[in-house]
Amino acid sequence: MSASQPTRLPPSRVRAFIAEILAAEGLPQDDAAEVGRLMVEADLLGGDGHGVFRLPRYVARLRAGGFNARPDIRILRERGATALVDGDDGFGHLVMKRCADEAVARARSHGIGWVGARRSNHAGAAGVYAMMALPHDMIGLYLAVGNANHMAPWGGIELLLSTNPIAVAIPSAGPVPILLDMATTVAAYGKVKLAAERGEAMPEGWMIDADGRPLTDPTQAAGGSLLPIGGPKGYGLALVFGLLAGTLNGAAMGRDVIDFNADDTSSTNTGQAILAIDVASFADPQAFKADVARIAQEMKSSALRPGFDAIRLPGERALATRAERETTGIPIPPALLARLDALAAASGVAPLSAETRA
Amino acid sequence: MSASQPTRLPPSRVRAFIAEILAAEGLPQDDAAEVGRLMVEADLLGGDGHGVFRLPRYVARLRAGGFNARPDIRILRERGATALVDGDDGFGHLVMKRCADEAVARARSHGIGWVGARRSNHAGAAGVYAMMALPHDMIGLYLAVGNANHMAPWGGIELLLSTNPIAVAIPSAGPVPILLDMATTVAAYGKVKLAAERGEAMPEGWMIDADGRPLTDPTQAAGGSLLPIGGPKGYGLALVFGLLAGTLNGAAMGRDVIDFNADDTSSTNTGQAILAIDVASFADPQAFKADVARIAQEMKSSALRPGFDAIRLPGERALATRAERETTGIPIPPALLARLDALAAASGVAPLSAETRA
Repeated sequence: MSASQPTRLPPSRVRAFIAEILAAEGLPQDDAAEVGRLMVEADLLGGDGHGVFRLPRYVARLRAGGFNARPDIRILRERGATALVDGDDGFGHLVMKRCADEAVARARSHGIGWVGARRSNHAGAAGVYAMMALPHDMIGLYLAVGNANHMAPWGGIELLLSTNPIAVAIPSAGPVPILLDMATTVAAYGKVKLAAERGEAMPEGWMIDADGRPLTDPTQAAGGSLLPIGGPKGYGLALVFGLLAGTLNGAAMGRDVIDFNADDTSSTNTGQAILAIDVASFADPQAFKADVARIAQEMKSSALRPGFDAIRLPGERALATRAERETTGIPIPPALLARLDALAAASGVAPLSAETRA
Repeated sequence: MSASQPTRLPPSRVRAFIAEILAAEGLPQDDAAEVGRLMVEADLLGGDGHGVFRLPRYVARLRAGGFNARPDIRILRERGATALVDGDDGFGHLVMKRCADEAVARARSHGIGWVGARRSNHAGAAGVYAMMALPHDMIGLYLAVGNANHMAPWGGIELLLSTNPIAVAIPSAGPVPILLDMATTVAAYGKVKLAAERGEAMPEGWMIDADGRPLTDPTQAAGGSLLPIGGPKGYGLALVFGLLAGTLNGAAMGRDVIDFNADDTSSTNTGQAILAIDVASFADPQAFKADVARIAQEMKSSALRPGFDAIRLPGERALATRAERETTGIPIPPALLARLDALAAASGVAPLSAETRA
């Protein structure tokens, strides 16, 4: 295997590694294991920038005091179908798992459930939490305020908005559920960083510079603005999702948003929200899932536009990646493997690469 | 006044005219007045293609049997925070007013309320229904399946999706609320028709033709596809909103969607959904509205991008138009005025132009 090839590791090995590191950093054993499981979900779905890649940053924040290793995640307000959760600066994964469980329980009693969070943190892949509704024959919807402002309001150049994402998961009788998981910007900031690493230019339409001109050199991205999808429409979506996931919960939005990548010590006061809709409130779940599968098949059956090889459903590629990586393992690039092994050494944990050398 | 100038009519006059026509066509007096009021709301907000402009088509559908003049709009299922409403092929305006009232009442009892509709119809401007939550210190969200398929799934060319819109209204202590009201396509189909009427070319990016090539001649739009915002992202939003507003309610979606402009007799089985979120479930309403106003002001205070004269909030232009038209009147172009007068003659009602001649 060439030195630049990623090492493929079994998901169970990566989960256990994350859990060991986080337990060594002070998380209760069960919480460490849960965060490991949810981080690896992002890797399985192909969200390589949202899974184990984040571990060094998370550990840095734990050590600097920005993360609370032993949070008291609790309900601040509740009212029938709704609840507001205080994440107590814990891992976002734990806060969002709690919120998803709450939303599902409330949907079971009231038809739908909406649970918001304040003082949460980065939770990895949005789709993971929307999908938590699926085993209950529910639809899941997740909104979040992103962890750094990379976008200007439409017509401006000051970075006042994040890429505030939405994820929606809809159960289907087809081979895969519908899983939309998208930022409200044309490109996620991770794609800009990837282009910079690879020495590639960005296409026009991803970013503008501080003077409003098209920005195509990703090494000049600092201070530039990502562009929203559909111009004012994507700006509107980012603003509205931010008000619903952030402001409504008493969480950060606009100028209050802290750059999670530049500040390890301050509470980010991240806001997120999860809605669970019990399909049985409106329809017979089996009939609904059959209808979703039929409509999905209609979409895929359209004649193709020249230059395209298939019509994909939202999430189809991510879920295929998930199935493949369950078998072939999570690809860890050499530079990341080295960083993770250094982290293991500093935490007194066996290196991730040990398994592959054995 | 030149013959090509629109006639400006007081909103009250247009409301009364619509009510008279619809009553003459068999609607109960109260329903006719309510539809008049809600249609004129679209005109006030500048949605000129969604207000009184639609009256001739609505009357044609009433006469052809596609609309039910005396529907029994009723709840089919209900469960705590949710309800499913059967519109009985009535005017969408009446069905959506009923759904908004239901969603607000359920939000008052359960924290949030989600009400879906089947067998509804075109309801005019989406934002009108989202805004019905505002006087109750609630956030309103509206989703709908559009009334004709004008978009292909991403990568395809068959028209299987409508411009499925979203509207979100958020109360604010600022001069205007936040009002996002957008189609999931780059351009609404009405803009294509307008370009055709004016003999103007469309910019690249609005549409593709049946061979997937950029389409800029609006007179060739039939069979072409509108393009979604953000490519696969807008396709994903249109699909997901359609499943939530249509399929979940047992309403039309995909190949089942009837072209409302070409078929006056069939039930459209239009699906829509309204979510009301009581702000008090999560925050003190006055504090929340102050926060929204502060963040709105932050957005507007950004330094401008060259070529822009201001940063606008979602809905700011529409709400300014509303304030202006309350005073200066609804502009009715000469061709529309002539059509409405012909309609009045056929219905035995005084012409709309009578007022201005008096």
